Amino acid sequence: MINITIIGASGYTGVELIRILLGHKDAKIKNLIANQQAGQPIGNIYPHLKIFDLPDLIKLDEADFGDVNLVFCCLPHATSQKIIKTLPDHLKIIDLSADFRIKDTAIYEQWYGEHQAQDLQKDAAYGLSELFRDEIKAANLVACPGCYPTGAVLPLYPLLAHGLIANDSIIIDAKTGATGAGRAIKQESLFSEVNEGIKAYSICQHRHMPEIEQSLSIAAGDDVKVTFTPQLIPASRGILSTIYVNLADGVQVSDLQAQLQKTYENEPFVHIMDAAPSTRDVFATNNCLIFVAQGRSENQAVIVSVIDNLTKGSSGQAVQNMNIMFGLDEMEGLRLVPVYP
Amino acid sequence: MINITIIGASGYTGVELIRILLGHKDAKIKNLIANQQAGQPIGNIYPHLKIFDLPDLIKLDEADFGDVNLVFCCLPHATSQKIIKTLPDHLKIIDLSADFRIKDTAIYEQWYGEHQAQDLQKDAAYGLSELFRDEIKAANLVACPGCYPTGAVLPLYPLLAHGLIANDSIIIDAKTGATGAGRAIKQESLFSEVNEGIKAYSICQHRHMPEIEQSLSIAAGDDVKVTFTPQLIPASRGILSTIYVNLADGVQVSDLQAQLQKTYENEPFVHIMDAAPSTRDVFATNNCLIFVAQGRSENQAVIVSVIDNLTKGSSGQAVQNMNIMFGLDEMEGLRLVPVYP
Amino acid sequence: MINITIIGASGYTGVELIRILLGHKDAKIKNLIANQQAGQPIGNIYPHLKIFDLPDLIKLDEADFGDVNLVFCCLPHATSQKIIKTLPDHLKIIDLSADFRIKDTAIYEQWYGEHQAQDLQKDAAYGLSELFRDEIKAANLVACPGCYPTGAVLPLYPLLAHGLIANDSIIIDAKTGATGAGRAIKQESLFSEVNEGIKAYSICQHRHMPEIEQSLSIAAGDDVKVTFTPQLIPASRGILSTIYVNLADGVQVSDLQAQLQKTYENEPFVHIMDAAPSTRDVFATNNCLIFVAQGRSENQAVIVSVIDNLTKGSSGQAVQNMNIMFGLDEMEGLRLVPVYP
Amino acid sequence: MINITIIGASGYTGVELIRILLGHKDAKIKNLIANQQAGQPIGNIYPHLKIFDLPDLIKLDEADFGDVNLVFCCLPHATSQKIIKTLPDHLKIIDLSADFRIKDTAIYEQWYGEHQAQDLQKDAAYGLSELFRDEIKAANLVACPGCYPTGAVLPLYPLLAHGLIANDSIIIDAKTGATGAGRAIKQESLFSEVNEGIKAYSICQHRHMPEIEQSLSIAAGDDVKVTFTPQLIPASRGILSTIYVNLADGVQVSDLQAQLQKTYENEPFVHIMDAAPSTRDVFATNNCLIFVAQGRSENQAVIVSVIDNLTKGSSGQAVQNMNIMFGLDEMEGLRLVPVYP
Repeated sequence: MINITIIGASGYTGVELIRILLGHKDAKIKNLIANQQAGQPIGNIYPHLKIFDLPDLIKLDEADFGDVNLVFCCLPHATSQKIIKTLPDHLKIIDLSADFRIKDTAIYEQWYGEHQAQDLQKDAAYGLSELFRDEIKAANLVACPGCYPTGAVLPLYPLLAHGLIANDSIIIDAKTGATGAGRAIKQESLFSEVNEGIKAYSICQHRHMPEIEQSLSIAAGDDVKVTFTPQLIPASRGILSTIYVNLADGVQVSDLQAQLQKTYENEPFVHIMDAAPSTRDVFATNNCLIFVAQGRSENQAVIVSVIDNLTKGSSGQAVQNMNIMFGLDEMEGLRLVPVYP
Repeated sequence: MINITIIGASGYTGVELIRILLGHKDAKIKNLIANQQAGQPIGNIYPHLKIFDLPDLIKLDEADFGDVNLVFCCLPHATSQKIIKTLPDHLKIIDLSADFRIKDTAIYEQWYGEHQAQDLQKDAAYGLSELFRDEIKAANLVACPGCYPTGAVLPLYPLLAHGLIANDSIIIDAKTGATGAGRAIKQESLFSEVNEGIKAYSICQHRHMPEIEQSLSIAAGDDVKVTFTPQLIPASRGILSTIYVNLADGVQVSDLQAQLQKTYENEPFVHIMDAAPSTRDVFATNNCLIFVAQGRSENQAVIVSVIDNLTKGSSGQAVQNMNIMFGLDEMEGLRLVPVYP
Repeated sequence: MINITIIGASGYTGVELIRILLGHKDAKIKNLIANQQAGQPIGNIYPHLKIFDLPDLIKLDEADFGDVNLVFCCLPHATSQKIIKTLPDHLKIIDLSADFRIKDTAIYEQWYGEHQAQDLQKDAAYGLSELFRDEIKAANLVACPGCYPTGAVLPLYPLLAHGLIANDSIIIDAKTGATGAGRAIKQESLFSEVNEGIKAYSICQHRHMPEIEQSLSIAAGDDVKVTFTPQLIPASRGILSTIYVNLADGVQVSDLQAQLQKTYENEPFVHIMDAAPSTRDVFATNNCLIFVAQGRSENQAVIVSVIDNLTKGSSGQAVQNMNIMFGLDEMEGLRLVPVYP
Repeated sequence: MINITIIGASGYTGVELIRILLGHKDAKIKNLIANQQAGQPIGNIYPHLKIFDLPDLIKLDEADFGDVNLVFCCLPHATSQKIIKTLPDHLKIIDLSADFRIKDTAIYEQWYGEHQAQDLQKDAAYGLSELFRDEIKAANLVACPGCYPTGAVLPLYPLLAHGLIANDSIIIDAKTGATGAGRAIKQESLFSEVNEGIKAYSICQHRHMPEIEQSLSIAAGDDVKVTFTPQLIPASRGILSTIYVNLADGVQVSDLQAQLQKTYENEPFVHIMDAAPSTRDVFATNNCLIFVAQGRSENQAVIVSVIDNLTKGSSGQAVQNMNIMFGLDEMEGLRLVPVYP
């Protein structure tokens, strides 16, 4: 049994972790930490959890890590690094913030500000499970990828690694549900502001862009830049990424499909589809569905991927990484069937 | 292992059954029957099921019931009775239509038209699990309650049975998500018609009203009539019932809370809350949450109950009944945590 | 031309006033006051207004009221009374807060806290246009009704005034869209919290209950109490009120319909329907649609009314009152056709 | 006064025309034609129209065109051409179908099937009001553009016409609300299928793609192909187009902004914004808002445009064209303020 502490348990990624771990046969939630709501049952914050058997929220300095094996850290970036560097050495840590995703401190600091735990930054494994499984297995600290990067990198990585697409003209047009902004209280996240609208934001200026580029540059063995447009849709969950790529010389769309099929044929969570999927098809699951269509010209493909931003895009992948780190069945706790409709 | 056939597998209750049964350790889906789509994989009809291992859809007359133990019948009323009376005798049957819910043929025929399987009608158990567990256990045919009756009868039955509320002034104001109308293709069910609106329909003329009255009359040992207003809200799932009752002489609101607490204290799926719940708190689960508030006058209470119409309101309760009929752990397959948010 | 100042212009009622007044041929918006955002164009706060010709936001103490005829005050209660008592005497004032709705100071203070402008409170007309037109015409200060009271009182007032219904058993089950909570930044108003759910709140404890009771007591000439349950649905706009009443002796449902028809036959904004309306049918208009259905018993009726909470429920009715106060065509600026779908 | 007949009045474009024309001081709706619902008031089909003074629905062969000046034809393609060629010669006709949008019969027939009114096809003006005003003014038959083409061509046309962008690498990633599919009864348009999801469809195979290419080829004076991905979001109205372009040599993003500003500086319905707009900002209006952002590389721009698909994308632009054809103020009936929120 893996004894687990969740730090930052009262946000959306925390509560999604709880949902998944309650169905995981090898996991036991020992501590739920939320400094501001400490002393209360989690059911006060999330009434849907009132009927489940869960520990009350406590402060970080009240936590006893003696018999804890694993910490999920669901804090915002900048805060996360400060806390993680103070945790006991025997713990394995899975961080869901951006703090340990970027390897190059200069790039991190350009996008996020000063980094105060650069040693840890270097040792952290990047937790895109299917692509970096060996590093994750060996790591004590795993940095879970951002939601947008998960949806974009899964299809693009093998195509670049095998030289099937040009690396200088990739365009990622991504659309996310409102939980992507977390539970932070902002006017622009009010129901009446989000409902019945769609808008683009941070065009080519979103922090997930350099994170995507880092992975794709590893894949290509070369410096890759991507055009990235995030957009907010009136749904709670889901990211759909529409990706425009130019094919390498002599490559056809069917070659892309074949490579993706081959890369992911034994992966339980990544599937290549024969029609364009909806985010509904992965709702509340750890799956990523990918579809490749012919573009307008011979040498263009349009790739569509869908994930649930809170599951494969954060807490689901975090549990998948836990399973890898502890040598468990990678699907344990994650045999989730989409809630449809 | 219970071998299962689902007849009418392509509707919303069928697909919800599949979701639940895929996580049930003692259930195996042997046949999926859908006459009009026979010959296709279920993934053609529901792309989110493409990646799961499920039998192709077949016609009823192609099904071999030799090693099948249980049939879930998800057909519309009137059709259901015609099919069920032709099924082999060794089968246990759980019917999700209205055909076997009403015991009094005259009342059935007043609301639904001619009944062609009146013998079966008399033998069928009414599948409101918590209230009729013994009958369900003993039955070969179980009629699952309607979604509205489930949400209304669970709180009202014990209050009437114990004489705590007046039986001549009950008002049930119920609100349902759009899946309540099933997957039938109707103009009024289009996204653009349902979105951003709420409307009442069939005021005091809905077929679930006599079904509610049947159960409440049993509880009260007297003829009970209820005022029932169903309303459609722009959500996919969920029923919230706001119920107005007058207290019997000398009874207080706290007595209602105490009785409900007592009736359901050992029930895993029914919970009495200390604040008004949202349908979000039971999303995609088999739970019913109940809250009792003081009304405007001393002798009035306002009761709120929430269920997921597709789970506790139909397919979840159907699996709960399966568990009862086959002597399994009643929670098996139904330890569902709400997907939130 | 009526020169208008809007105080509290940056909330939802302010911006709805702007929408309506931009189409009003006798109105000119002279000042938009919003202390916290003063100095900015309103288009910074509401990008959809960038392309319209509107004055920049200013502070209250920067406003010149010299040639202003009318002030709409869109501040929160408690704040509103403090500001209004300082405004120049020549101004007519339409207040959209709760501060001047309740005539009995004791009741006001029980629900809202201390009142600091009790003289004004006594003089203010209650701005339910169809019912108190003469008082509104004569008043210098009009208190626009709450959104829930508007939807509930319009159908109930004439029925009580003519003795057609019992006054001791009225139940109002009301459902509102999310704009009812205004633009205040609250966690419970986030898209991801409101979407796909419905919940009841403040059951028999909502501040609009005594306001409804005040009007109905006037109508009945007796002390009327009502059971009132407000509920939040996942829509931006609209209130649907489902009202349960018992008929007076010898009265039939058709008598209710006839009386409502008679009361409102010359009213352009109130219409008696022959089928249950949707909030969609009044979206973005100043209309109230009313339907009366037979209840379960002979002596019960179920009344459904729908309004747009931001239009007839606040800013639309405010403009209707302006038209009355200034002797204009009451429909000017309010000949709005529902945006459908 | 312009006397108007609407053929195909019961669809969404018909009902949106009615909304706009009810507020148009020079328009009178004489006939509403809907063969299948003939004999009924339009209020039977659309309850929100019950309270407006409108003629009953009639059949086409019941219509008297004697004093009619203008026909709006809201029929599906293929049907539209058959009806229009039988109408009296004195009528001006504005067609909202695809039948007369494509000039090249071969291309039309490749995408839509046989054309049975090729003479009319050649004479029809393409009704993108801002770009083809002179042709529209002179025409007896105007073909209103598709919704997607309106949103894409308005920003791209002047940029191509002035040689500011490359014409061989344009990518249009478009997202539409559900009314884009009209009121046709299809399973995929059900609320429960559209809610909480986003999906792509007809990738590089949508009929609006050749229509876009036709206009852009005129602008460029060369054969232009575009990559076009339409996507369905859970909203009723609105199209957001995210457009990726490469700049011509020596051109900068600010040149694009300057050209668009210059092209549209006197246009009341097209506005160049300084931040990315939401579809909410044009809800229920005839406006198109355009924003140009720097792409990832020096020579790339990302253009965002938003329209309401039912207004500027169909019925609003149709009325704008009516105003042009009859020499009226082009804004008459179209001074619409967005309903927000």
